[in-house]
Amino acid sequence: MKIALDAMGGDFAPQAAVAGALLAAEELAGRATIVLIGQEDAVRPLLQAAGPAGAALEFVPATQIIEMAEHPAKAFQQKQDSSIAVGYKLLLAGEVDAFCSAGNTGAMLVGAMFTVKAVPGVIRPAIANFVPKLKDKFGILLDVGANAECKPEMLEQFGELGSLYAQYVLGIAEPKVGLVNLGEEEGKGTPNTQAAHQLLKANPHIHFVGNIEGRDMFNEKADVVVCDGFTGNILLKMAESIYEMMDKKQIHDPFFDKFNYEAVGGSPILGINDNAIIGHGRSTPLAICNMLVQGYNMADSGIVDQIKATFKS
Amino acid sequence: MKIALDAMGGDFAPQAAVAGALLAAEELAGRATIVLIGQEDAVRPLLQAAGPAGAALEFVPATQIIEMAEHPAKAFQQKQDSSIAVGYKLLLAGEVDAFCSAGNTGAMLVGAMFTVKAVPGVIRPAIANFVPKLKDKFGILLDVGANAECKPEMLEQFGELGSLYAQYVLGIAEPKVGLVNLGEEEGKGTPNTQAAHQLLKANPHIHFVGNIEGRDMFNEKADVVVCDGFTGNILLKMAESIYEMMDKKQIHDPFFDKFNYEAVGGSPILGINDNAIIGHGRSTPLAICNMLVQGYNMADSGIVDQIKATFKS
Repeated sequence: MKIALDAMGGDFAPQAAVAGALLAAEELAGRATIVLIGQEDAVRPLLQAAGPAGAALEFVPATQIIEMAEHPAKAFQQKQDSSIAVGYKLLLAGEVDAFCSAGNTGAMLVGAMFTVKAVPGVIRPAIANFVPKLKDKFGILLDVGANAECKPEMLEQFGELGSLYAQYVLGIAEPKVGLVNLGEEEGKGTPNTQAAHQLLKANPHIHFVGNIEGRDMFNEKADVVVCDGFTGNILLKMAESIYEMMDKKQIHDPFFDKFNYEAVGGSPILGINDNAIIGHGRSTPLAICNMLVQGYNMADSGIVDQIKATFKS
Repeated sequence: MKIALDAMGGDFAPQAAVAGALLAAEELAGRATIVLIGQEDAVRPLLQAAGPAGAALEFVPATQIIEMAEHPAKAFQQKQDSSIAVGYKLLLAGEVDAFCSAGNTGAMLVGAMFTVKAVPGVIRPAIANFVPKLKDKFGILLDVGANAECKPEMLEQFGELGSLYAQYVLGIAEPKVGLVNLGEEEGKGTPNTQAAHQLLKANPHIHFVGNIEGRDMFNEKADVVVCDGFTGNILLKMAESIYEMMDKKQIHDPFFDKFNYEAVGGSPILGINDNAIIGHGRSTPLAICNMLVQGYNMADSGIVDQIKATFKS
């Protein structure tokens, strides 16, 4: 299997990207090869410096970089030889099995929509994020930012996408799906969440457990938590900031340490025809490594085929 | 000054309410008298057991109770001799200066709208909540649940209401006002938050600092953080759950301990013609005491007159 990494993506690229790729190559030895995509001048010397470990990685040149602050759609279309555009070309051509980047999130989304495209039947793909659970390892929360506003039908589909991911990638049998809301009762929330509640409840493909309040995010009420990208993005960033504040105060605990984004490394885009993962801009080598391992697990699970089969009907 | 308390409100009423009232009476001695409202049979014996301290509290009977699960508007209208309805009657009549309850939140809101009413010019009052700040003591977040959906004009007004509260009750000169959003840039978010951003920016009564991301909730970027009640409610409950998990794990720290709702005791309703505060259902005596002290501070600050003057123009 081949897992591709945007070597130019992230605040500490290419150094952190290459270092993370080397870690992942060791971890995935015998199972997958890491393919680095980026500017030759920047990446080659780092690979050479790593000796035989560096030589074990594949390298594909890309002359351009999409910067963090660039307009995603414009940059993606204008920079067809950027590391992100080249990564998606490889993915579309079937030359790699997953593509990961800690670069421009919007460009990663736009790239997915323009190249591998949304799975037929999926209204809008979503970005999923891992949520630490008190008893189990992780649950997932989606959408965390691809769609600020969501129609009820989109929220319903996020429930299906998240449920499939939890089942096939996280290995949770019959995952419990919950809807973020301001009260437990069925009639709570906005007209949108009320309608989404009814759709999720009636959906035969998922095990819907009802509304999930802010206080139930980390307990065992639901494995898959569904919300619009506005709410999800704010929840996610707040949770991350809590970990950072604890870390600064040197408060550590096995549960709260799972809030560290480095532990999972990236957020999969669900509902597209291939495996793509978006990493944190600040990704460290450990985060990059875990993102690549997650990319491998995702590709290995066959989750995309499961999603295609579910939305075909 | 007289601060009224619903003695029947909250999961541990009337015991926790009376115990909290006794604490507050001590704290506010010489400045305010606590007025307990509730069922004679339930409250009198507790006051008698407290001896002279109990005798120093005033008591107003109310024969009915609005239960936590009751439909707010229906219950408020049907139970005109409930402790919440009697509390608002005293407030409207000017017999007390603030009314606090840890009972049915919806009934507290409905009661406010039916009796003391919204300040003319205020589209919809909001519930505000205290937010722990890393450097300063607290900022405030509003709305946290009175209005699940908010028009841009409502979010703008929340900025004004919160700014006045921060200034007159928290003593923050020129409070910084921020808008919860999924990115810092002006154009980010839903059409609603984009429009609210422009209104807040143009408002001459406040010091608007722009969008606030989930990660900036607890730092010094803003003293007043504005959002719709859906988002605010979920943020608030998630923050509370984090404190609870830390507390269970016996992780304590001066900053994170400020996440304990007991430290502030309640959430003021802003934009009504009087001082009303809603407490947590699980309120302990300490929480009740702090809610009453907050009620005193609010009444003492003259915040309602400031709000009336601002919205008159």
